[in-house]
Amino acid sequence: MTAATARAHPNIALVKYWGKRDLRLNLPAVPSLSVTLDRFETVTTVIRGTGQDRVVIDDAEAVGRARTRVLRILDLMDPARPPCHVISRNNFPAAAGLASSSSAFAALVLAADVAADQCRSPEQLSVLARRGSGSACRSLWGGFVEWSVGRLRDGSDSHGHPIADPGHWDLRIVVAVVSDARKPVGSTEGMIRTQETSPLFPAFVDQAPARVARARQAILDRDLAALGEEMERSTWEMHATMLTAWPTIRYQQPGTLACLDAVVALRGRGISAWATMDAGPNVKVLCAAADADEVAAALRPHAPRVEVLGIGRDPTVELHR
Amino acid sequence: MTAATARAHPNIALVKYWGKRDLRLNLPAVPSLSVTLDRFETVTTVIRGTGQDRVVIDDAEAVGRARTRVLRILDLMDPARPPCHVISRNNFPAAAGLASSSSAFAALVLAADVAADQCRSPEQLSVLARRGSGSACRSLWGGFVEWSVGRLRDGSDSHGHPIADPGHWDLRIVVAVVSDARKPVGSTEGMIRTQETSPLFPAFVDQAPARVARARQAILDRDLAALGEEMERSTWEMHATMLTAWPTIRYQQPGTLACLDAVVALRGRGISAWATMDAGPNVKVLCAAADADEVAAALRPHAPRVEVLGIGRDPTVELHR
Repeated sequence: MTAATARAHPNIALVKYWGKRDLRLNLPAVPSLSVTLDRFETVTTVIRGTGQDRVVIDDAEAVGRARTRVLRILDLMDPARPPCHVISRNNFPAAAGLASSSSAFAALVLAADVAADQCRSPEQLSVLARRGSGSACRSLWGGFVEWSVGRLRDGSDSHGHPIADPGHWDLRIVVAVVSDARKPVGSTEGMIRTQETSPLFPAFVDQAPARVARARQAILDRDLAALGEEMERSTWEMHATMLTAWPTIRYQQPGTLACLDAVVALRGRGISAWATMDAGPNVKVLCAAADADEVAAALRPHAPRVEVLGIGRDPTVELHR
Repeated sequence: MTAATARAHPNIALVKYWGKRDLRLNLPAVPSLSVTLDRFETVTTVIRGTGQDRVVIDDAEAVGRARTRVLRILDLMDPARPPCHVISRNNFPAAAGLASSSSAFAALVLAADVAADQCRSPEQLSVLARRGSGSACRSLWGGFVEWSVGRLRDGSDSHGHPIADPGHWDLRIVVAVVSDARKPVGSTEGMIRTQETSPLFPAFVDQAPARVARARQAILDRDLAALGEEMERSTWEMHATMLTAWPTIRYQQPGTLACLDAVVALRGRGISAWATMDAGPNVKVLCAAADADEVAAALRPHAPRVEVLGIGRDPTVELHR
């Protein structure tokens, strides 16, 4: 019996991921760029050589698709593997408004790799994490990470690339949790419907490479207004494709717009605050560390919970001896 | 001295107009399709041969751009005209959530034409009304009206075409007035910014002809679900181009989304209700006459005012003898 425990942080996309060019391999239609968050993490232990497979997430036995998704990644990583236990815990509630799948699959592949003494590179692990959840391929690094579309049919070149360390730039991400209700349409279903029915989807795809390039440069230059513009434009280009899908996919709720209005008002007062939204009603606001308290205060009247997060470090893993 | 008085109804677009292919001639980037409303109207009197030009709108002397826009149309219609008085009154408040410019310029060109005994055809008057306000070219007829893009450089073939009489189909338009605050960005400025900065604008333009064709057929077939789908898709395709303009143009307010949610919930209960939005926060819902009360009741909790309108007739004009 061998076992390893990994810790990884979730990330949020600054230039957005929406749409798949290969559903089975989980290859993206667009490149994307993210920032890894601090404070929140998934801690996952993989124990090899147990009596049977078990998957426990946040102290509950995983069943159905949640279990299958995890075991499928273990099978991919070691087709001849013995039965395993996977014990995963998030230190942040689903109610925090952040998808845990990015940190979850990053921690899973790291722990499974070390438990099996396979010693893959972060890039190889990123490819495997991608198979579990697209955005997870960006959680193999801290700081700012780019996910390239890749050119190869097998997807082996579609993985994360670190572009700046966590210490490069002292930003904050203020998360306004408008609602923690379940998504009306899941991400994969939403992406498929969007690609199949939105006549605006190709234009979103066309824009993405230039948005990533400009956002990358803005990060290297520590130019928050430039990064904010790329992030907001990418965000609306993504949501525009959902709104023009049929039936319409709209993740914005009334409270979402109240938060966006608050961000516009902050900028009107000279505070460089920039909003993004993912497949849900919550609003994430990027700002300088010095402005985070004021940004959080402006959002609190419109959201039941507000979380202020910094930039997270690389994931870690330890082998239990 | 000769004088004539015309009455015209406002219209709302079912397939949306956004963007201009010629700013001076006010030629549209896309074809559109509207329904003329009943009950609300603009009544405009043009008196020729007065001592000097005067424009009075809703009992107030018009100045600046409001005055110039009106006199410019009179000049276009009769370059050698004598001084005129124009007295215009809307029987619906700006707070009704409907743009009065469509009925205003339709009534203006009708009254001016008859006062000058020029006897233009409705199509010729539609071309002139278009110069004052694009959507006005559709208010020269009651019922359902299409506005063709036209091919000629001088715009003389870009005007309204009636496609079905007011009596063709007993529909209602329920207007939820979310807010009567002034638009943050005016239509012309918004259109220019959208065309110049939204990478999704060309895809909206590409879709429009097929949307108009399908909506026209749905009207002829009295197929409300088919018309509703085209209207909602056209609406979101238009707003998607605004949301992806830079700086972002967003007319939706929190109350707008609450109304849209109410419409989705109505459909979930089997009521064929379909929403559209223009350059403002208000929501207009298309439904069968028999469902109008239930639709209005569903919207009232989310909007300070709700108006139920039917389909309007052709404008009328009388010469004062």
